[in-house]
Amino acid sequence: MAFIRHIRACNTHDATAFLPFAVNGRPVGHVRPAFADRVAGLSDAFRLTGGAAPLLDLLPPDPARRSQAVAEVVAALAAEGMVPPLRGEDFPVLARWGQPELLKIDRAAVPGFGVRGFGLHVNGYVPGPDGRIEMWVGRRARDRGVAPGKLDNMVAGGQPAGLSLAENLVKEAHEEAGLDPSLARAAEPVGAITYIFDTVAGLRRDTLFCYDLALSRDVIPRNTDGEVEAFELWPLARVADSVRTTDDWKFNVNLVVIDFLIRHGQLSPDHEPDYMDLVTGLRAVD
Amino acid sequence: MAFIRHIRACNTHDATAFLPFAVNGRPVGHVRPAFADRVAGLSDAFRLTGGAAPLLDLLPPDPARRSQAVAEVVAALAAEGMVPPLRGEDFPVLARWGQPELLKIDRAAVPGFGVRGFGLHVNGYVPGPDGRIEMWVGRRARDRGVAPGKLDNMVAGGQPAGLSLAENLVKEAHEEAGLDPSLARAAEPVGAITYIFDTVAGLRRDTLFCYDLALSRDVIPRNTDGEVEAFELWPLARVADSVRTTDDWKFNVNLVVIDFLIRHGQLSPDHEPDYMDLVTGLRAVD
Repeated sequence: MAFIRHIRACNTHDATAFLPFAVNGRPVGHVRPAFADRVAGLSDAFRLTGGAAPLLDLLPPDPARRSQAVAEVVAALAAEGMVPPLRGEDFPVLARWGQPELLKIDRAAVPGFGVRGFGLHVNGYVPGPDGRIEMWVGRRARDRGVAPGKLDNMVAGGQPAGLSLAENLVKEAHEEAGLDPSLARAAEPVGAITYIFDTVAGLRRDTLFCYDLALSRDVIPRNTDGEVEAFELWPLARVADSVRTTDDWKFNVNLVVIDFLIRHGQLSPDHEPDYMDLVTGLRAVD
Repeated sequence: MAFIRHIRACNTHDATAFLPFAVNGRPVGHVRPAFADRVAGLSDAFRLTGGAAPLLDLLPPDPARRSQAVAEVVAALAAEGMVPPLRGEDFPVLARWGQPELLKIDRAAVPGFGVRGFGLHVNGYVPGPDGRIEMWVGRRARDRGVAPGKLDNMVAGGQPAGLSLAENLVKEAHEEAGLDPSLARAAEPVGAITYIFDTVAGLRRDTLFCYDLALSRDVIPRNTDGEVEAFELWPLARVADSVRTTDDWKFNVNLVVIDFLIRHGQLSPDHEPDYMDLVTGLRAVD
C-alpha cells in the first residue's frame, strides 16, 4: 500500500468525454454532450455550437443575468434528476482563482458544468515540546451522505460565493469544531492541492486551500453541526500509517494529509520512492 | 512587480528544439540535434536514429560501461567547447527520483544531455516567540562564476552521485554555513520545486529538494568554502518584499523562498491574485 494510490484515485478522468463550457466564449468548465444538449434545449441563454470543436456557451453579458439563467436551468435539471438535489449554497464560477466572479451556481451543479470548485481544509495540530506533532482527526457522522464514518480534517468546507476564505474559515471552524474566531484566525494558509476526476454527475475539478492551525493541548474541538461524530488527537506517525495502509479517510482528505506530512518532514525523499510523484501529483493542472 | 515573474523566468524552453536522449531506448533527457550529431559521431556507444521521431540512444547495457562511454564523449566535447569545463563532480542519471542510477555524468554535461539535475536547498530560519520568523540570507561571493553577489539560501548544493540527500545536506551545511552535523541533521525535508529552461548549454531540468532548518538565535552561520561572503538574519516580511520587488536573489533561490513564504503563511490566497499559479508553477512537470 502506497500513499500515491490516493492521488491516482482522485485523478481519473476521460477528457474526451467532455465539451468545453464557456462564458461569453471563454472556457471555464467541461460538460458531457448529453448534458450540453439538454441545457441548450432548456434555455436561450445558452448556445451549443456543433462542428469539429463543439462548445456550450453561456451568453448573457453580466454576472447577475448569467446566474439567473443558470439557476433556472439547474432547477429544471434537478427536477429531471440530471443534477443532484440542489444544496441552496451558491458557489462562484471563476476563470481562475483571484479573478472576478463570472456567475454563481448552486453547489450541486458545479460538477455538471465542470467548473472549478473551491474549498478549504484546516489541519489542526498540537506541536509537542520535542518537535513531535499530534493531529486532530475527526470521524464523520455515520448519517452523512458523503463519506459517512470516514476520517476527516479538523475543519473542512466548500467555499461559497460572497465570503473570503478567511471569513469562511472562521464560520466553518465554529460549526465543525466549536472554535472561537480568535483561535480560528490563527490558522495559516500553507498552500493548496488540486485534483480532477469524473463522476456520473460530471467533472470534479477541486482546489482545496490548505491551512495549518497549531493549537495548545487544552483546546478540545467540539462539533456543533452534526457533521463530525468524534475528534481524536493522533501522533503524526499514526496518521501517516493510517493514510498509507487504510482507506479509512475521506478520499480527498488523504491528499490534504499527505501534503501536511510532506511539509512537516514526515516523509523523506531519501526513503519514499514516490516522493516526487507525491509532490507534483498533489497539484494536478488542467 | 510580482512573485510569479520569477517562476516564469525559470520556465522558458522550446521543446521542439530538442530530441529525446534515451538509455537503452528509455527516454531520460533532451538533446539539441547538433549536439546529438556530434555525440553519435564521437562514439559507437551511441546510436542516433533518424526519420520522423529521431532519438539519441545510449547502448551499453550496464551503468559502468554507460558512464565510461559518456565520460569519454564528454571529455572530447569539453575540449571542443561543446560542453562547459568539466566540474569533476559526478551527477546521477535517473529515469525518475527513487529509481536506480542508470549512469553517472559530469555535472557540467547535465544540461547538454538534458537529464534531470537534483539539488538541495536549506531554508535556515529563527522562529520568534510571537510566531514571527527571521530567515538567514547568504550573499554569494563576488568572485563566483554563478550569480556573483546574489542573495542565496543558507545552504544549497547540487546532489552528486553516491550520497544520500541527508549525507549531502550535512556536507554542504558544513562547507557553506559551518554547521555541526548534529545541527544539520535537524533540517526537515518539506517538499521540492522543479523548473525547466533552455540555455546555450542545453536544457536545465532541475529538481530542488527543500529543507527547513529552525535554529536558535545563538547559532551564527559561517561560510568555510568561499561561496558566501556574508550571512544576515532578515525578518520574513523583508525577505518577501525583496523577492517580490528586486532581482537581488539567485534565479532559482527565488522559487525556493516563494515556496517557503507559501508554506509559512506569508502569502494569502485571499490577497495574492497569483496564489494558485505560484502553488502549481513551483512544480513544473515535463
